[in-house]
Amino acid sequence: MERIITIGREYGSGGREIGRRLAEKLQFAFFDHQIVTELAKRTAFAEEYILSIQEKRPYPVLPVPTVRWAPPSPTLDQQLEVFLKESEVIRDMADKAPCVIVGRCADYVLRHRNPFRLFFYADIADRMERCRERNEEQKSMNHDALRRIITQTDKSRSRYYEFLSGQKWGAKENYDLCINTSSADTEKLLQCVISLL
Amino acid sequence: MERIITIGREYGSGGREIGRRLAEKLQFAFFDHQIVTELAKRTAFAEEYILSIQEKRPYPVLPVPTVRWAPPSPTLDQQLEVFLKESEVIRDMADKAPCVIVGRCADYVLRHRNPFRLFFYADIADRMERCRERNEEQKSMNHDALRRIITQTDKSRSRYYEFLSGQKWGAKENYDLCINTSSADTEKLLQCVISLL
Repeated sequence: MERIITIGREYGSGGREIGRRLAEKLQFAFFDHQIVTELAKRTAFAEEYILSIQEKRPYPVLPVPTVRWAPPSPTLDQQLEVFLKESEVIRDMADKAPCVIVGRCADYVLRHRNPFRLFFYADIADRMERCRERNEEQKSMNHDALRRIITQTDKSRSRYYEFLSGQKWGAKENYDLCINTSSADTEKLLQCVISLL
Repeated sequence: MERIITIGREYGSGGREIGRRLAEKLQFAFFDHQIVTELAKRTAFAEEYILSIQEKRPYPVLPVPTVRWAPPSPTLDQQLEVFLKESEVIRDMADKAPCVIVGRCADYVLRHRNPFRLFFYADIADRMERCRERNEEQKSMNHDALRRIITQTDKSRSRYYEFLSGQKWGAKENYDLCINTSSADTEKLLQCVISLL
């Protein structure tokens, strides 16, 4: 059985929760926010700062095409440090025990260790419904505002993944199994994944 | 359990064979080439002609943008007749018994009957290897020639699907489960699918 399971997921698809239950069933470690906590310990940065960086891929401060030489940018250097250190944290965690890792481009970071790569997605209506069920703030949000949050979060994840891996986020060829969680029963879904490992 | 399972698949991914074994395990009818045979019976066309039409989406014979009025085209009419009749055959077959249907845009044709929609894909190297294992003619074919066959076949399937459905062939949002068959064990794969039904 694969020792490392990575999870990519659209916002509101329920992928994180399925990952947590999968880890529970398999008695694997479950890594999600712990990666950021560990990263904050190893760098001088606050967790909030790390999360804000991960929401956008690093851009040089100056418009590169118009200048032949760009002065060193402390912001860019910091951003790159976070990206590099995070890969190190992910590799260290994967070394310790069989695990399920959510997001953070782990499928690419650990590509030489043959992880089982899952991607969860769902119809937009189901994702909105799931968001409303699970998030107090989003419960009363109007349709357009909630949809904007979903689109923007996916865009951030996509940018981050594509910047680090050079691959397209959510493109099925980068995963072993892509599961549409719309109207799927979670228990059956877990059985489906476990039977493939 | 869903009574209708539809299978989309990249050429050389092994999707057809998995579909056949899935039907066997579930004791479902398995429809693949039978659809063409039945279609030939219901129309005046030979099976070879039907297959040749399905390899390309219907195009008007004249370049439409340059003329304001196109005379009736018997070829186009025949092509459209085949497309319409085929949908009818697929619906009739799905009415008769629980079934697995391979290709032919069945997921879209039967969309109002809530089919379970599978899509199989694989890395190009694995698809080439599978082609060589299963097809005497392709065994000794050189790399480029075999790759061309794979690409062209997928292109035909994609065009046919997109013409009929207006949807993108192989785009994960059109399926319930997308499975990468590269290095996957077929028996585990079948268990995975069955546990989701």
